[in-house]
Amino acid sequence: MTKFSAVLLAAIGASFVVPASAQFAKPEDAIKYRKNALFVMQQNFGRVAAMAGGKAPFDAKVAADSAAVAEFVSNLPWKGMGQVLTKVTLKAKPEIWAKKTKFDDEARKMQAEMAKLSVAAKSGNIDSIKVAVNAVGGTCKSCHDDFRAK
Amino acid sequence: MTKFSAVLLAAIGASFVVPASAQFAKPEDAIKYRKNALFVMQQNFGRVAAMAGGKAPFDAKVAADSAAVAEFVSNLPWKGMGQVLTKVTLKAKPEIWAKKTKFDDEARKMQAEMAKLSVAAKSGNIDSIKVAVNAVGGTCKSCHDDFRAK
Repeated sequence: MTKFSAVLLAAIGASFVVPASAQFAKPEDAIKYRKNALFVMQQNFGRVAAMAGGKAPFDAKVAADSAAVAEFVSNLPWKGMGQVLTKVTLKAKPEIWAKKTKFDDEARKMQAEMAKLSVAAKSGNIDSIKVAVNAVGGTCKSCHDDFRAK
Repeated sequence: MTKFSAVLLAAIGASFVVPASAQFAKPEDAIKYRKNALFVMQQNFGRVAAMAGGKAPFDAKVAADSAAVAEFVSNLPWKGMGQVLTKVTLKAKPEIWAKKTKFDDEARKMQAEMAKLSVAAKSGNIDSIKVAVNAVGGTCKSCHDDFRAK
């Protein structure tokens, strides 16, 4: 390794000194990671949902692009889902870890419906998109009802 | 559209009522979007960079998966890069919009190097990964030096 590492890694904020098994340098990074990934997903899904709900004009290209991003990003948050005991008040309820199998199942259902939405959006058919948005939204709501604090 | 829209969209926080040209419901969402996407990218890149820099043991699968995510997500932040005049102190310097062509060029260079890193990580060759990490890191630093406040 060359001299770049210390200076450059510091410059870009990559201060990892971690065992191979750990995916995050700090527990707070894991929390931030899942929240940030969910926000990026939600913004893309929300853009398509707004079109499906008549809140925004339908733009087939924007819908297809946004759904594709939402699909990809729907795979990411779960890596940051390890339980962290922290003084920070989280919307993540302890039930997530007490009923982890159920939580994981709900996450997988959302990912599956998001993938279907991506296919529907590529088709450019607004009626198919509406059905798929509804299905994704149902999985969001179901998981939030069970596992997210108000 | 059925009854789901109002209730469900409210439940999932998709309160978009926007013109087709607008990609975000609120200016603050655009800022949050670019910051969150950059964080998700940096976490994935940082994981590979830590391996390249000898700060974490090399795990070829984790490196390849992380680099692929970093590559995909490197395309996202720029959509949220519209200039927003806000009282919030941002690390984004006004030079971004004064020298937008230069900024966009730096962003594209980073994306190109991140794509090369993804290819290198798929190869599983740590020496190729080191070279590619160095190149990505150079583009991070160059853009941060010019356009990010300390």
